[in-house]
Amino acid sequence: MRKICVFVGSRANYSSIKAVMTAVQNHPDLELQVVLGASALLDRFGRVETLIRKDGFTPDFTFHNIVEGENPTTMAKSTGLGTIEMSMIFDNLKPDYVVIVGDRFEMMAVTIAAAYMNIRVAHTMGGEVTGTIDESIRHAITKFAHVHFPANDDAAQRIIKMGEEEKYVYNVGCPRIDLVKDELKKDSYEELSNLFSTFNGVGHGLDIKKPYILVSQHPVTTEFGSNRKQVEETLYALNELALPTIMLWPNIDAGSDEISKAIRTFREKERPEWLNLFKNLPTNIYIHLMNTTACLVGNSSSGVREGAYIGTPVVNIGTRQNARARGKNVIESNYDKQSILNSIRKQLEIGKYSMDDLYGDGNAGEQIAEILSKANPNIQKKIVY
Amino acid sequence: MRKICVFVGSRANYSSIKAVMTAVQNHPDLELQVVLGASALLDRFGRVETLIRKDGFTPDFTFHNIVEGENPTTMAKSTGLGTIEMSMIFDNLKPDYVVIVGDRFEMMAVTIAAAYMNIRVAHTMGGEVTGTIDESIRHAITKFAHVHFPANDDAAQRIIKMGEEEKYVYNVGCPRIDLVKDELKKDSYEELSNLFSTFNGVGHGLDIKKPYILVSQHPVTTEFGSNRKQVEETLYALNELALPTIMLWPNIDAGSDEISKAIRTFREKERPEWLNLFKNLPTNIYIHLMNTTACLVGNSSSGVREGAYIGTPVVNIGTRQNARARGKNVIESNYDKQSILNSIRKQLEIGKYSMDDLYGDGNAGEQIAEILSKANPNIQKKIVY
Amino acid sequence: MRKICVFVGSRANYSSIKAVMTAVQNHPDLELQVVLGASALLDRFGRVETLIRKDGFTPDFTFHNIVEGENPTTMAKSTGLGTIEMSMIFDNLKPDYVVIVGDRFEMMAVTIAAAYMNIRVAHTMGGEVTGTIDESIRHAITKFAHVHFPANDDAAQRIIKMGEEEKYVYNVGCPRIDLVKDELKKDSYEELSNLFSTFNGVGHGLDIKKPYILVSQHPVTTEFGSNRKQVEETLYALNELALPTIMLWPNIDAGSDEISKAIRTFREKERPEWLNLFKNLPTNIYIHLMNTTACLVGNSSSGVREGAYIGTPVVNIGTRQNARARGKNVIESNYDKQSILNSIRKQLEIGKYSMDDLYGDGNAGEQIAEILSKANPNIQKKIVY
Amino acid sequence: MRKICVFVGSRANYSSIKAVMTAVQNHPDLELQVVLGASALLDRFGRVETLIRKDGFTPDFTFHNIVEGENPTTMAKSTGLGTIEMSMIFDNLKPDYVVIVGDRFEMMAVTIAAAYMNIRVAHTMGGEVTGTIDESIRHAITKFAHVHFPANDDAAQRIIKMGEEEKYVYNVGCPRIDLVKDELKKDSYEELSNLFSTFNGVGHGLDIKKPYILVSQHPVTTEFGSNRKQVEETLYALNELALPTIMLWPNIDAGSDEISKAIRTFREKERPEWLNLFKNLPTNIYIHLMNTTACLVGNSSSGVREGAYIGTPVVNIGTRQNARARGKNVIESNYDKQSILNSIRKQLEIGKYSMDDLYGDGNAGEQIAEILSKANPNIQKKIVY
Repeated sequence: MRKICVFVGSRANYSSIKAVMTAVQNHPDLELQVVLGASALLDRFGRVETLIRKDGFTPDFTFHNIVEGENPTTMAKSTGLGTIEMSMIFDNLKPDYVVIVGDRFEMMAVTIAAAYMNIRVAHTMGGEVTGTIDESIRHAITKFAHVHFPANDDAAQRIIKMGEEEKYVYNVGCPRIDLVKDELKKDSYEELSNLFSTFNGVGHGLDIKKPYILVSQHPVTTEFGSNRKQVEETLYALNELALPTIMLWPNIDAGSDEISKAIRTFREKERPEWLNLFKNLPTNIYIHLMNTTACLVGNSSSGVREGAYIGTPVVNIGTRQNARARGKNVIESNYDKQSILNSIRKQLEIGKYSMDDLYGDGNAGEQIAEILSKANPNIQKKIVY
Repeated sequence: MRKICVFVGSRANYSSIKAVMTAVQNHPDLELQVVLGASALLDRFGRVETLIRKDGFTPDFTFHNIVEGENPTTMAKSTGLGTIEMSMIFDNLKPDYVVIVGDRFEMMAVTIAAAYMNIRVAHTMGGEVTGTIDESIRHAITKFAHVHFPANDDAAQRIIKMGEEEKYVYNVGCPRIDLVKDELKKDSYEELSNLFSTFNGVGHGLDIKKPYILVSQHPVTTEFGSNRKQVEETLYALNELALPTIMLWPNIDAGSDEISKAIRTFREKERPEWLNLFKNLPTNIYIHLMNTTACLVGNSSSGVREGAYIGTPVVNIGTRQNARARGKNVIESNYDKQSILNSIRKQLEIGKYSMDDLYGDGNAGEQIAEILSKANPNIQKKIVY
Repeated sequence: MRKICVFVGSRANYSSIKAVMTAVQNHPDLELQVVLGASALLDRFGRVETLIRKDGFTPDFTFHNIVEGENPTTMAKSTGLGTIEMSMIFDNLKPDYVVIVGDRFEMMAVTIAAAYMNIRVAHTMGGEVTGTIDESIRHAITKFAHVHFPANDDAAQRIIKMGEEEKYVYNVGCPRIDLVKDELKKDSYEELSNLFSTFNGVGHGLDIKKPYILVSQHPVTTEFGSNRKQVEETLYALNELALPTIMLWPNIDAGSDEISKAIRTFREKERPEWLNLFKNLPTNIYIHLMNTTACLVGNSSSGVREGAYIGTPVVNIGTRQNARARGKNVIESNYDKQSILNSIRKQLEIGKYSMDDLYGDGNAGEQIAEILSKANPNIQKKIVY
Repeated sequence: MRKICVFVGSRANYSSIKAVMTAVQNHPDLELQVVLGASALLDRFGRVETLIRKDGFTPDFTFHNIVEGENPTTMAKSTGLGTIEMSMIFDNLKPDYVVIVGDRFEMMAVTIAAAYMNIRVAHTMGGEVTGTIDESIRHAITKFAHVHFPANDDAAQRIIKMGEEEKYVYNVGCPRIDLVKDELKKDSYEELSNLFSTFNGVGHGLDIKKPYILVSQHPVTTEFGSNRKQVEETLYALNELALPTIMLWPNIDAGSDEISKAIRTFREKERPEWLNLFKNLPTNIYIHLMNTTACLVGNSSSGVREGAYIGTPVVNIGTRQNARARGKNVIESNYDKQSILNSIRKQLEIGKYSMDDLYGDGNAGEQIAEILSKANPNIQKKIVY
């Protein structure tokens, strides 16, 4: 029985790896270990721990490592603390593989602890190209990883070019698509209609059958200090449009506070009737929103990734998703009220797009589990060229 | 005035970056900041802090972060602690550039703190290929670095292939060669003759004018558990040869304890008259030893690097220097007493080699300082392909 | 010049020590060092750093050490992180004395770092008796402290009984009273009238000349899990009274989240017109509120301490101030809506009390500075009996 | 089943608590949890982990927290790191009681984590009076402890005077005496004769049947910087005596390096034929040495404590055991060669003393286990007066 340890550090992480966790748990030759840390335990970020337990996974360890402050210094400090904690956890769990999801700052802590402790590292969502510090983190993790599970062909080619052994680079598609595929089979009308009563939304509510906008805009860590201005451009563009809108609070990266402040100030000043805010929504609800919204606005990777499979019209703002492979469903905009407004109007005219399997066709989880049960890369890595 | 922060974490580090420190200090547009941590402060590893102060550098901060245990877990934990400390130090020093030297485990702490805090990272000695976890660390640092100073052309090409912007990859040669060049101008006879009285060597002493062996064998972290056996093969090969020998204690990596135990046990058992042990020797002394030894044995990078410039006959044992570019002065051996013995004997026959500028011609420090005073890479990195 | 280092970890801390900081800064033989950490840097807790800088103090170091989670585990973890940071800071500042204020959890970090590093510890507000873990922390700090500055005679006697040398126990009164004394000389009508526009209060506002209630209720860490219920009793008592009320959000101790949730839920459910909430108010404003409120309700130490000097009618709820010396201005209540309501009504009838110098007469700061410039306790402590 | 967690941080700790561990393990209503950290895992300090496992205890968690440097700063930093680790461990073990042994620096980490996390603290060996920072630590732990197990009546009285509830102060005697009692029933001649071959002693050996000196001198942390000089006085006194001597290397407190250096330098300079050094000896062996030595010299608490029960002639040097209750078997000396020499000669004349039950009669472990199975102190502590 190989022991496969999955670390989940945020709500977004969980959506990206749930299909893998399920597949590992169901695989006869694998034993699943679950570790939760970072914002996965924090109420302020929707405490995905609760959802994970409800889904039937029992964490082997949970730990708090987020040092308050939400600035670049605490991002580094939290990573240091996470490294200390993970080294102790691995000492106890002694996994055969650690699965690292994507590129958030805390993932560096898990990767270093594993690699230094001679535990094999499997990396999902490597090889992509984006903005922010995540860009550097993602490629650095690739250089520590023994097995790679990029989410599309573009990304796979990039990993190989970076000098990784082709044999251990598997383009299995994105595990998030597995969830989307499953979810879209279900009828969601009732749940969406009860959004406000179920998930404590703030605002006047909306009729889910009529055209509405979905907004998800996160901080860009390398543009620390400008995030407030950037989100204000979005808010004032939406204010002009004044269509019913569902907006999510930002994630925990450095700069998160700037965005939260911008939203609060905007609300107090403009008292926008059209704006509805949610702290966190379950992934499945979010998928149905992506499936029914007239346009997804912001800089979330979901627009590019799940958006391609679902066919969601997306306005992608700014540098955060720069150069991540995307389908025809995405229109780009810079941080400028007018540009954002024009792009949204264009998408409203076009309407929904057809399905594109750019990020896989929905069975990434099972492929990954199967590969992890067999792959035997050398613990001593060596660059290919 | 740009502020250039150099972190020194070990005696070896200092030799690799001293020429840069001097050049930055002398440069009219640069201000030098010095931070010392890890084994640079520890008596057990020769406390290079003393030497650094004697050389006229005043550390801005010093910190202890090595968690005792010398195993893979504490290597990770020390890195976590180092990340916490460095984030606080950078908060106070606010440098424009941080210079990262090479690839030892604690360098990851400095790199993460700098990169997460939006400080530009300059990396020396990137792009090389070796064994141990250093191989992964080195390339991961490359993925965080904004400016690269590889020590040879091979390494430069590798960095570019990994997707780094060619414009910021400068093959300036290795700063260690700067020291060698300076040092070899001096007469060292008297100092070498007083080795034992000055540096507290343990053993019966030797006549530096007669043929003698120099040994430097460090732990291979990915072969944790085998290091004791490996160094025993070396010791018993040397025992057969019984030529006067100067041996250095191993560095602080996981596995160091295994090697130290092997040496102690060997001494108690065999009471070798030919063996002289030194805890640490100043770099300049070591350079003269490389210049006068009949053969350098072990797995130190100095054999490959400075050895090329000096022309030292080298027997390189095992995987630690695997695939690092090397000149004709190096003969390879596996971890086997007989193979080691044969290789040494071959080198004794051949004698000294002629100079090879594979790792530069001795002015890397000044080139690096000049580049750091001008280069303006974007803080937001982006993979080239 | 003796170097006196003051650590401020929260807004409350600052009020308790500001008079000492001023006196040390003005003393000819003393040099003030200021270190800020814990919640003193956090927006969520009013970021007292801003105020401290505005008051003309320049922090020598600031550090983030609060690990998110607000539960007993993160309280311990934050203390561990604080100890690591403080040990580095003391290494750099090398103070002669460290002044420890009171008994909040992070103070243990500062105390341990100082005591272990052979730096003399001066402790203010020791010897008092309260509820929560602060009770243990306070007395443990006493056992590390070399010089004691209790705020009243009761407390001084208790410190001596604990085996501390009488010679180094100085009943100087409470430095918070110094601020109160200064503040009450000023006219505050305009500032109080502009509370809402200046300090972003949430609520419908109130007329400061008419009777109003002031509420400050903090979590009781040893009653973790019950805090929500407790504050609800208070809220529903106030709801019945429905007098205009100013309430402050709770401090950062474990349990803070419970109280915040209770308040938010109460507001959404009852939509109380009478309730005005403030995140943080400057100390001086708070003093004037204590001076003008018809009744202060909750478990803040200010009711007992400053309340005595000012003559504020106070209803003290629950165990948090248990056994802290108090004057006749305080009526006790348990965690029960009806009991709280009855006590408030009684105070409303009685009205304002006359001044009581139980906690000093307003020149503690200067006395402390003078003593610190002269006292020479042995660094090796020894229990008296 | 109450869960009783015992933390062991050093070889000395284990001797002090082994009897309790055994009794808890054997108690029908108790479940034993064992956590090892600090120097208990370090080869350099005899890695008592090995012995503990051999004795049949299986640690639930082990962790490294000693930051290298052996100075006051790293002592504080190690404590910070230990607090972080212990908070995580308690989160997982959720014990009903934590047993804190004595007063070494790392014990503060365990105490804070437990007390902050609302876990009851039981403290052994409280209430004693000694030198060094241990003096403050011990009493601070008392102020956090819910149940006290002092080792003698003097100490019990002191705890009560400090304001602890008399009901929870149990004078059960010292658990170390339990081991002594058991051990002295055994014949040790063979083991003692094989000391050198079994425990890798350094020196020329000695005949255990003839008079010999036993030396154990540890650093005094508050006299950091003077430890080298102090131990030199001892060494030169012994050099004059030139009786066969067994000396132990010092423990890990700040200043340990000074003592080690003094010993090494002395050996190189004087080449003392009479001096035999041991890194660590099993407790049982040490007990037999105390039983057969002509005189125990140094500042170890064993001379005062076990010495009373065994009747060992002791010369206690300097301040480290100041004011610890002692029997007639101890003669005091200051840090002066001649004074030390005179005191030893006096003890050699007197010879062995008769048994004194000052520190109990050998059944402390069982009493403690029984009390822990029944005692129900309030988690909220309150000073008595």
